[in-house]
Amino acid sequence: MAFGPAAMGYDRAITIFSPDGSLYQVDYAFEAVKKGWTTLGVKTKAGVVLIGEKRKATQLLDVDSIEKVFILDDHVGCSFAGLASDGRILIDYARSQALQHRLIYDEPINIDYLTKLVSDVKQMYTQHGGVRPFGVALIIGGIDRGKTPKLLMTEPSGQFMPYYAVAIGQGGYTATEYFEKNYREDLNMQDTILLGIRALASTLKPGEKLAPSNIEVGFADVDSGMFRKMSFEERASILQKL
Amino acid sequence: MAFGPAAMGYDRAITIFSPDGSLYQVDYAFEAVKKGWTTLGVKTKAGVVLIGEKRKATQLLDVDSIEKVFILDDHVGCSFAGLASDGRILIDYARSQALQHRLIYDEPINIDYLTKLVSDVKQMYTQHGGVRPFGVALIIGGIDRGKTPKLLMTEPSGQFMPYYAVAIGQGGYTATEYFEKNYREDLNMQDTILLGIRALASTLKPGEKLAPSNIEVGFADVDSGMFRKMSFEERASILQKL
Amino acid sequence: MAFGPAAMGYDRAITIFSPDGSLYQVDYAFEAVKKGWTTLGVKTKAGVVLIGEKRKATQLLDVDSIEKVFILDDHVGCSFAGLASDGRILIDYARSQALQHRLIYDEPINIDYLTKLVSDVKQMYTQHGGVRPFGVALIIGGIDRGKTPKLLMTEPSGQFMPYYAVAIGQGGYTATEYFEKNYREDLNMQDTILLGIRALASTLKPGEKLAPSNIEVGFADVDSGMFRKMSFEERASILQKL
Amino acid sequence: MAFGPAAMGYDRAITIFSPDGSLYQVDYAFEAVKKGWTTLGVKTKAGVVLIGEKRKATQLLDVDSIEKVFILDDHVGCSFAGLASDGRILIDYARSQALQHRLIYDEPINIDYLTKLVSDVKQMYTQHGGVRPFGVALIIGGIDRGKTPKLLMTEPSGQFMPYYAVAIGQGGYTATEYFEKNYREDLNMQDTILLGIRALASTLKPGEKLAPSNIEVGFADVDSGMFRKMSFEERASILQKL
Amino acid sequence: MAFGPAAMGYDRAITIFSPDGSLYQVDYAFEAVKKGWTTLGVKTKAGVVLIGEKRKATQLLDVDSIEKVFILDDHVGCSFAGLASDGRILIDYARSQALQHRLIYDEPINIDYLTKLVSDVKQMYTQHGGVRPFGVALIIGGIDRGKTPKLLMTEPSGQFMPYYAVAIGQGGYTATEYFEKNYREDLNMQDTILLGIRALASTLKPGEKLAPSNIEVGFADVDSGMFRKMSFEERASILQKL
Amino acid sequence: MAFGPAAMGYDRAITIFSPDGSLYQVDYAFEAVKKGWTTLGVKTKAGVVLIGEKRKATQLLDVDSIEKVFILDDHVGCSFAGLASDGRILIDYARSQALQHRLIYDEPINIDYLTKLVSDVKQMYTQHGGVRPFGVALIIGGIDRGKTPKLLMTEPSGQFMPYYAVAIGQGGYTATEYFEKNYREDLNMQDTILLGIRALASTLKPGEKLAPSNIEVGFADVDSGMFRKMSFEERASILQKL
Amino acid sequence: MAFGPAAMGYDRAITIFSPDGSLYQVDYAFEAVKKGWTTLGVKTKAGVVLIGEKRKATQLLDVDSIEKVFILDDHVGCSFAGLASDGRILIDYARSQALQHRLIYDEPINIDYLTKLVSDVKQMYTQHGGVRPFGVALIIGGIDRGKTPKLLMTEPSGQFMPYYAVAIGQGGYTATEYFEKNYREDLNMQDTILLGIRALASTLKPGEKLAPSNIEVGFADVDSGMFRKMSFEERASILQKL
Repeated sequence: MAFGPAAMGYDRAITIFSPDGSLYQVDYAFEAVKKGWTTLGVKTKAGVVLIGEKRKATQLLDVDSIEKVFILDDHVGCSFAGLASDGRILIDYARSQALQHRLIYDEPINIDYLTKLVSDVKQMYTQHGGVRPFGVALIIGGIDRGKTPKLLMTEPSGQFMPYYAVAIGQGGYTATEYFEKNYREDLNMQDTILLGIRALASTLKPGEKLAPSNIEVGFADVDSGMFRKMSFEERASILQKL
Repeated sequence: MAFGPAAMGYDRAITIFSPDGSLYQVDYAFEAVKKGWTTLGVKTKAGVVLIGEKRKATQLLDVDSIEKVFILDDHVGCSFAGLASDGRILIDYARSQALQHRLIYDEPINIDYLTKLVSDVKQMYTQHGGVRPFGVALIIGGIDRGKTPKLLMTEPSGQFMPYYAVAIGQGGYTATEYFEKNYREDLNMQDTILLGIRALASTLKPGEKLAPSNIEVGFADVDSGMFRKMSFEERASILQKL
Repeated sequence: MAFGPAAMGYDRAITIFSPDGSLYQVDYAFEAVKKGWTTLGVKTKAGVVLIGEKRKATQLLDVDSIEKVFILDDHVGCSFAGLASDGRILIDYARSQALQHRLIYDEPINIDYLTKLVSDVKQMYTQHGGVRPFGVALIIGGIDRGKTPKLLMTEPSGQFMPYYAVAIGQGGYTATEYFEKNYREDLNMQDTILLGIRALASTLKPGEKLAPSNIEVGFADVDSGMFRKMSFEERASILQKL
Repeated sequence: MAFGPAAMGYDRAITIFSPDGSLYQVDYAFEAVKKGWTTLGVKTKAGVVLIGEKRKATQLLDVDSIEKVFILDDHVGCSFAGLASDGRILIDYARSQALQHRLIYDEPINIDYLTKLVSDVKQMYTQHGGVRPFGVALIIGGIDRGKTPKLLMTEPSGQFMPYYAVAIGQGGYTATEYFEKNYREDLNMQDTILLGIRALASTLKPGEKLAPSNIEVGFADVDSGMFRKMSFEERASILQKL
Repeated sequence: MAFGPAAMGYDRAITIFSPDGSLYQVDYAFEAVKKGWTTLGVKTKAGVVLIGEKRKATQLLDVDSIEKVFILDDHVGCSFAGLASDGRILIDYARSQALQHRLIYDEPINIDYLTKLVSDVKQMYTQHGGVRPFGVALIIGGIDRGKTPKLLMTEPSGQFMPYYAVAIGQGGYTATEYFEKNYREDLNMQDTILLGIRALASTLKPGEKLAPSNIEVGFADVDSGMFRKMSFEERASILQKL
Repeated sequence: MAFGPAAMGYDRAITIFSPDGSLYQVDYAFEAVKKGWTTLGVKTKAGVVLIGEKRKATQLLDVDSIEKVFILDDHVGCSFAGLASDGRILIDYARSQALQHRLIYDEPINIDYLTKLVSDVKQMYTQHGGVRPFGVALIIGGIDRGKTPKLLMTEPSGQFMPYYAVAIGQGGYTATEYFEKNYREDLNMQDTILLGIRALASTLKPGEKLAPSNIEVGFADVDSGMFRKMSFEERASILQKL
Repeated sequence: MAFGPAAMGYDRAITIFSPDGSLYQVDYAFEAVKKGWTTLGVKTKAGVVLIGEKRKATQLLDVDSIEKVFILDDHVGCSFAGLASDGRILIDYARSQALQHRLIYDEPINIDYLTKLVSDVKQMYTQHGGVRPFGVALIIGGIDRGKTPKLLMTEPSGQFMPYYAVAIGQGGYTATEYFEKNYREDLNMQDTILLGIRALASTLKPGEKLAPSNIEVGFADVDSGMFRKMSFEERASILQKL
């Protein structure tokens, strides 16, 4: 430890604040998010779209069978960047909470509340010893009652924020810059989806190209209030509009 | 550790006193408070006001959907500075305690007592191993029976104190100085609110300006005894009085 | 650790004796007591008085709403120096024990026994791992059956001792010296209170002055056998007798 | 530790993220997988095959009694590379989950879901302290309802991915290269098995030869939907086709 | 640690034997005993006496209210040297065990057995982690059935031994030397008490003197079989016989 | 630690993988096995034999009363090398599992399954913190239904393998070499036993000799299907055939 | 730790194997045994004897009241060397197990089995963290059904062995040497006892002498099958035969 990094050992456990009030382990967990496949979400007056990229490391990977956008309930879906197995645990939790809510109250769960429930689990893993934080950020989006589009991103710290557009993972910074230049709230659903796809396209390296088999798209428009995923054909068709 | 800081390792766990009787981890948790968005409260004979600032790091953040002032019960609200997810946990706890009190005793919970309940949770996280202290300070304000305005601030240590005016977070020192120069107890409700807003304005950098979308205001006057939050229009209207 | 203090690491956990049979963490907890606001108690044949000082760090602190002397039951009260949130926990415990005793035995709890109960909790936090000792010393005083005045002080170690007069906190040494020169057992109640106030006054810096709003006084005389706190007016009146 | 490796101690516990967001203990567990006997799986339109190699370290080892391909349920089997005792625990778990599913729902368990259940156990061993991750990777293959062949590989992290062909263990890289050059989806069942055997053969050292007693072969064709293991005679017979 | 003491770290936990088979933490706990007020016991054919010294650090200490000799049951008492709060816990335990024995068996508890029960608790705190040993030695004395005087001393290790005379605390060595020169078994009760007092007197510094208010004396003679404490007057009277 | 061994601290806990995917604590536990008395087993078509050596460190040791071959059930026995007390725990466990199986299913337990049950306990002690692995290897042998001889060896890791012949402990390598040269599967029971005894004899130092009192022999032939231990006379008689 | 002993830190916890497969903490616990008072046992055809030495460190120790040989049940007794309080715990356990056995089965407990029960407790304290091994070795002896004399010694590791004669503690090596030269199995009971006493005498320093008050003798002859302790007179009488 004698020639250790500036962190000076304050980064060895989630239960230790550094002298400047940081929780290094939470910061490090966010690094796992930054190494994940790019994922993004856009919210406009017309609705919400979530788009996840899938990278084919080898031809042998059956990439079509990999899910990156998940339906949580009829009206809400999510995507994530970071440790896939951590993400899976939280998605399972969100689905069971949404289902329980329908069973008990006979109505769809409020999306802010669902996000809070997931984030409370995350918070617990930042304050009690013997565990590590969840190395994953979730983008949750859908349509709440009153035709209200919702888009939220939960951080490893358990903090969550509402966004108009948000992008995480390897291409997160580039896509965010794209959104800052091009986002407008008054788009129709198709243009909302196209905005998201263009933001994802902006993160590609020269020579790379989006294909229907390496993106997943889920969206919910305020009219139907339903969150659904695009089929391969729909993805192929919308990619042609680029 | 050989060339470590003066803390000499006494700051690695909440269960260790330093030789001078300090709990460094509690002190470090207060640093997290100091890095939070500025939050303040004012108590006069007319009532209590809580004001929280919201900073728009990016245009893509849907800052209007972020809450910084929280209603705990009809007669009491709170705000916080520090780790947002820690604050959320304590606010949930406060709300459920206030609700339980109404259910059991059929009367509003005493604000000192509610503050004590929240602070007791905080204390527990400073004396038992395997956890870290809550990295958050809460300002709790409202009107108790007998038309008594109350304003208290709870520290990460679990200590809480009654104040006439109190400010925490990044602009805490500046706003406190403003209060020390300008506070008077005999203001009416509107002037109380204006005093708080002016104190917040004093913390802005040159060129920055308060706008209805980057502050939240909650208040309770002794007449109604109700804690309520200002609407966007009300905030816009009172900001024009500056 | 290579150039660490003489404590050589024996001071890192409550469960470790140093080679000379000391428990450093208990000693360090006493340092927290020494940094607290001055608190004292006096026992004479006429009764017992507890006096706590309150220091107004800022004008914004609503010092009148801060309690430093606490009624535990009709016949007994206490004050403390050290970590305020730790003190609160023990006072809550003492109150509930006193109440339970009344409910079960229909008589006031014996003050030695009440002090022992509180001290047993403290002891437990000095022998079992994963916690830290309570960083607080309590002065407990009142009138037991048979018109017997009692005054005891509990240390962070869980040890408690009976005193004629005792003072702790920042001004503890100075006030103790004052008591050693001026204490007499055959004072009436008012002179007992005055002795306590004079001892507190002896700890002030040049230019400082006691005011009714920065002291709290609780006392129990053998005749009534009741512990009660002085009002603002009573404090103002007795301070004029100095 | 003074001259320690670049990992700088971040690799000592599963509950610690490194500053770049890695979980070193999970990475190290994967090294245990890479040291295991070669195991592979192939999925084509005709079905799925799992092949495990068995190496006869000594003539005294009764290699015919060693199992490397395991039937989990009528329609699904698995193989593994890594720590054999860790693998056994997970296979037991998978079998009991498949059995329970039949008992409760009276239908075969979905293979993705079965894989998820096993992977959730693995994830738990990467986030909670006091344990180590499972040092084993499982290849799970079979036929789901709708005559859908499935092939998935679970990593020590708890992540799992669907593959067309996958190989792990000592010969994993070589066999993967073989697959990348030779895989085609439209093979009949026998050619699928032969492709797997040839991939395994590609990992042998010069002079080594596959024999019926040092491989195990399990397969499921879409027609029968049943996973079954080849007999010694069947293995001898197919090896002659090489 | 680099230039640490000879103990080389084997003294950091009760669960670690040193290479020579020592439990350093138990040895260190005995140091706490050696720093306590002198306490001693004498057993002759006539009975048993326990004598505890009380040192008046300050005139303000109400030393008459401090107990150093404790009645455990009608026939048995004890005294201790070391950490007062640790001693209190064990005395409470001894009293409740003696009481339970009377309730269940309707007869006084055997003194050896009572000592064993207390010592078993001590042993437990030397073998299981997360605690420290009791820093206290108890001298237990009384009259068992058959008019048998008993005198035992329990060590922090949980070991206990029967003695004719034993002394612990600051003056332990000096008083023991006195006993070794002057002990005789055939003394009457008064001479037994006088022997104990003289042994205690032998530990005083030049100029110091025993007074009725700084010793406590408890004794049990074989005729009555009762353990009782001397009053102030009795102590004053016997001190005059010196 | 500065000049520590190559293991660099990865060998301090069972819950830590080394960077190359090893579990050092499991490897070290195997060293305890290698220091044990030599133990071996042989399986032929005729049956299974287990032989354990007993070394008379001193004439005072009542070596005839020491057991090294254990009957687990009518059809199965075992022997072990390594920490004797660890072995005893596992043998107790195996016996109770075999007994339970008879009680519940009214048939002898399958020997592979029994071995798996024992090995699962071992695995648990390699993955969960706060314990150490079992420092013992068991050789389990017997006759399963269908007159099938079985011989398995369980390692400290929880891995177990089927063998034709296996030897562990101090003479393990030498006896294994002997088996590799001389093992044949088609021996009758007596020759099987003689092969085992000769393998054990091959591990003796010059001048040492096997005697009926320093070996134990247990065997099961396929005809009877019963595992039984040889008497002193039988051992004496077969040793004469050498 | 930089210039630490050869043990290199592998000796800090019972849950750590050293690279050569040792459990240093168990070895160190045996050192505590070697520092204890000498204790020995002899088994001949006539019966079993246990002899414990008691050393009078000071005249004030009531050595006659100290027990070193313990009756566990009518037919079996024990003695120990090492930490006295650890020994007491195990003797209590043995007694309660023997008693339970009589209550449940209405017959004396088998001595091997009783020894195993005690040793299983010891083993548990060598494999699970947070405790230390028992620093004590027990010699258990008696007569089993069938007039079979039994003599066993349990080590801190939980291993136990049957002996003809065994000696532990400070004089263990010397007494063992004496036994190796002089032991014969065909002695009558009195000569068996005399052999044990002579072995003990062989460990004395020049000038030291055995006396009836510093030895304890317990024995069981095959005829009576009862374990009983010698009275002072019997000890005096047999010592005269030396």
